[in-house]
Amino acid sequence: MSEFKGYKGKSLDFLQKNSIKVGDTVEIQDGVKYSGIIMPRYEHGDDKHIVLKLKSGYNVGLELEKIQSVQKIPSKESKAKNTEDIKKNPLLPKILLLSTGGTIASKVDYRTGAVTPVLTAEELNMSVPELAEIANIDTEVLFSEYSENIMPENWQKIAQRLAEFDKSDYAGIIIAHGTDTMHYTSAYLSFALAGYPIPVALVGSQRSSDRASSDAALNLIGAARFLVGCKTNGIFVVMHKDENDVDIACHFGTRVRKNHTSKRGAFQTVGDAPAFIVTGKEIRRNNSSEFFKEKKYQVKTNLKTNVALVKYYPGYDPDLLEKILELNCEAIIFEGTGLGHVGKVMYENIKKANEKGVFLGMTSQCIDGRISMTVYESGRDLLDLGIIPLEDMIPEVALVKVMWALGNTSDKEEVKRIMLENIASEITN
Amino acid sequence: MSEFKGYKGKSLDFLQKNSIKVGDTVEIQDGVKYSGIIMPRYEHGDDKHIVLKLKSGYNVGLELEKIQSVQKIPSKESKAKNTEDIKKNPLLPKILLLSTGGTIASKVDYRTGAVTPVLTAEELNMSVPELAEIANIDTEVLFSEYSENIMPENWQKIAQRLAEFDKSDYAGIIIAHGTDTMHYTSAYLSFALAGYPIPVALVGSQRSSDRASSDAALNLIGAARFLVGCKTNGIFVVMHKDENDVDIACHFGTRVRKNHTSKRGAFQTVGDAPAFIVTGKEIRRNNSSEFFKEKKYQVKTNLKTNVALVKYYPGYDPDLLEKILELNCEAIIFEGTGLGHVGKVMYENIKKANEKGVFLGMTSQCIDGRISMTVYESGRDLLDLGIIPLEDMIPEVALVKVMWALGNTSDKEEVKRIMLENIASEITN
Repeated sequence: MSEFKGYKGKSLDFLQKNSIKVGDTVEIQDGVKYSGIIMPRYEHGDDKHIVLKLKSGYNVGLELEKIQSVQKIPSKESKAKNTEDIKKNPLLPKILLLSTGGTIASKVDYRTGAVTPVLTAEELNMSVPELAEIANIDTEVLFSEYSENIMPENWQKIAQRLAEFDKSDYAGIIIAHGTDTMHYTSAYLSFALAGYPIPVALVGSQRSSDRASSDAALNLIGAARFLVGCKTNGIFVVMHKDENDVDIACHFGTRVRKNHTSKRGAFQTVGDAPAFIVTGKEIRRNNSSEFFKEKKYQVKTNLKTNVALVKYYPGYDPDLLEKILELNCEAIIFEGTGLGHVGKVMYENIKKANEKGVFLGMTSQCIDGRISMTVYESGRDLLDLGIIPLEDMIPEVALVKVMWALGNTSDKEEVKRIMLENIASEITN
Repeated sequence: MSEFKGYKGKSLDFLQKNSIKVGDTVEIQDGVKYSGIIMPRYEHGDDKHIVLKLKSGYNVGLELEKIQSVQKIPSKESKAKNTEDIKKNPLLPKILLLSTGGTIASKVDYRTGAVTPVLTAEELNMSVPELAEIANIDTEVLFSEYSENIMPENWQKIAQRLAEFDKSDYAGIIIAHGTDTMHYTSAYLSFALAGYPIPVALVGSQRSSDRASSDAALNLIGAARFLVGCKTNGIFVVMHKDENDVDIACHFGTRVRKNHTSKRGAFQTVGDAPAFIVTGKEIRRNNSSEFFKEKKYQVKTNLKTNVALVKYYPGYDPDLLEKILELNCEAIIFEGTGLGHVGKVMYENIKKANEKGVFLGMTSQCIDGRISMTVYESGRDLLDLGIIPLEDMIPEVALVKVMWALGNTSDKEEVKRIMLENIASEITN
C-alpha cells in the first residue's frame, strides 16, 4: 500500500509536512482531542480532510483548516519470532512448503483493516503447530504475489522449481497460493509437469492466516495428511469442501473452479465430487482413475500467451474478433453457449481466423457438461468453419492448455492433437 | 440445413445430376444393393464418397466410382394436423403462448438425425393435451430462431409484443425460447418491462418436443400451472429442477444461468433455491420477496450494444482493452477473479478507459458470491481507477443491464445509478 494512499493536494501536503503516513497512530487537536490511526482514502474525495480510525472503530473525517496540532505516537515494534522452534522428527515423512503469496501467507493489518502479504513460508508453517505431527516441513518463499497478479511467467517459475525436486525424498509438496487464479496455475502445472512423480497440493485460504475465522490451518493440515497418505501422484487443489470446518476436498487440478467469491468451500470439482476428501485422519477416494493418463514424466514449461478466450453473448460485436486477430493471436478458445454455439453473425470472422491458421477451440459457458456440435445446425456450421469441440474441458483449462500446446509446437495439426489428448484428467469420459 | 450440406466437387455433382439431396431416401447398387438416407457430411472429407444411413442405423460411405445405379424413393407426406381440435373451456383462465423458436419448437428429422425448428406455437400447444385442462391457450409465432442466433433486436421485438398485452386478460404469458441464451433474454425483459403486471414464463427444452425423452411437455405444463396459480408477477425461467421428471423450477429471470450443456435440470438459480417449485398441481414458494422492486410498470425497450464483457485471466493481453475502446465501446463489464480483481498489467488501460468516460463495472467469474473491493489492495486500486463493484449481479445480467441502461440515458452518472439500483431482483441482499 502506498504510504499516502488516496491523499492528494492539500491533505497530502499536510501528511508529508508532519511526517505522517497511512497507518500511523496520531493525536490531533481541533478543539476536541482525537487519537487514532490515519486511514487510507478510497473514494474520489476532496483534499480538505484526513480520515482517522478511532479506538471505538469508527472513522472520522477531520477538516485540515480546523486542525490546531498533530502529534505522531510511536508504535510498538512487534517481537521478532524465533523460527527455530520446530523440532524435526526423523520418523516422519518430509514435505516441502513453497510459498507464492496470497491470503494464506497474509496478515490483516488491524490498524487499517487491510490484508497484506507478509508471512514467510516458515512463519506459515509455525502458525500451524499440528503440521509438525504429520511431517517434517521444509519451507521456501518462491515469490510473494496475490494471485490476480500471478502471470504465466510465475507459473513457469513454480514449475521449474518443482522440476528441481523431482528426484527428492519429499512425500509431497505444498504450494501456498492465492485463491483467485489458483485453478489456472494448477492446470498449467498439470500439463507442464505431466507425470510429476511427487503429489503436489496447491493450498490457499479465503481468510488470512492470523484471523480466528481463517481456513488456512485446516487446509494446510488436510493437504499435509493427503500428501503423506494418498499413495498417488498428481496436481491437486486442496481447500475446504464446504462451510463446515470438517471436510477438506482434494480436487484434480484440471477439473476445479473457484465458484464463490468468499465462501471457504468456494472451490468445486466441475460436475463431480472432489477426487479425495480428507476428514480428520481419514482419506476417502471418490475417483478411481489416476490423475496423469501416462506414467511417463516430462518437463515442458514453454508456453505462448498470444491466445484469447472469447465468451460469446447476444450482441457480441464480431469486429472484436478481427481486433483480436490484429494482436497476432494464434489460438482462440470460445466460451460458446449451450452445447457449443455462437451466433451466425460471428461466422464470417471465424472463417477469416481459420484461414489465417488460428487454432479455434470450443468450450461452453455452461461450464458443466460436454460440447456436442453435431446435434444442431449451428454446431455443424461451426465444425465446417474449422472449430474443434473440446469435449468437456473447462474453458479456463482449455485456455491454459492451448497456451502450453503453442509453446511446445508450431505445427497446427499437432496443437489440435495435443488439445484432444487427455493428459491430466482435463477431459472426462 | 443446406440441401447438399458438406458435399463438394465430384460428390456434389453426383447428387445434383441425380436430383438427390440430403435427407432423400435412395437405393444404390455398387455390386451390393443399399437402401438408406443421404446423410450430410460434417468432416473435412474428400469428394469421392457419399454417406448413406442404412435402416440398421449404421452409416456407410459409398465410393462414387463404384456406383452402378441410384434411384430415389419417394417419401410419404406427413398428414397435416387439424389445429382446431382443442376446445376452449370458458371456466378456465387464459394463457398466451408466444413462440420464438428453439428446441422446444423443434422436431428431430429422423432421416438425418438433425433437429429443425418446425413446430408452430399451435402445434406445440396441441402436442401437450394436458395444457387444455389448465388454461385456454392462444398461440402466436413471433419468430423462429435457435437462441444462439437471438440478437438484442429480437429481445426488443419480444418486449414490444408483450407490452401490447399489458392490459389483456391473460393470466400469464409463456414464451417458448431456445435454452442457449434464454437467461440473457429473461434479464433484458426484466429491465425493459420492469413492473409488467402479468407473470411471464420463458420455457425451453433440452430435447425436442417430439422425442419420447423430451422435457418440453412437463416444462410447459409446469409453466402453465405456475402462471395461473402463482399470484404474483415477474419474469421467470421455467425448466426442470433436476433430472427427475417431477419438479419444475421457476427461477427469477435475473438470477438464473444455464449451468449444464445437456441436462434437463441445466438451469439453476445462482446461489439460492429457485423462487418457486411446481410439483404436480402444487406450487411451493421458496423466495418471499417480490421480483420487481417497484410496483410501477414502465416500458423502456431501448438499448445500446457497444459494450463488452471482459473476462480476465492470467496472460490477458492489456492491448485487447485498447482494441475494445477502438470500437467506441461505452461500457465494459469485467468478469474479474475472486472478490473482483484483475492483474496490475490492466491498470494503465483501465485508467485510459475511465478517462474516456467508459462505464466500468466489476462482476466475478466465480459467478456466485458478492463483489467486495475493499478487502485487498488490488480491489482498492481498481476502485481508485473508477471501477464500480456490481454487488452480486451475475456477469451476463450486468452486461444486459448496462446495454439497457445506456439505451435509456447518455448521462454517465445516471448509468452508474441505474446499475446499482435493484430493479428486478438482480441484486440480492
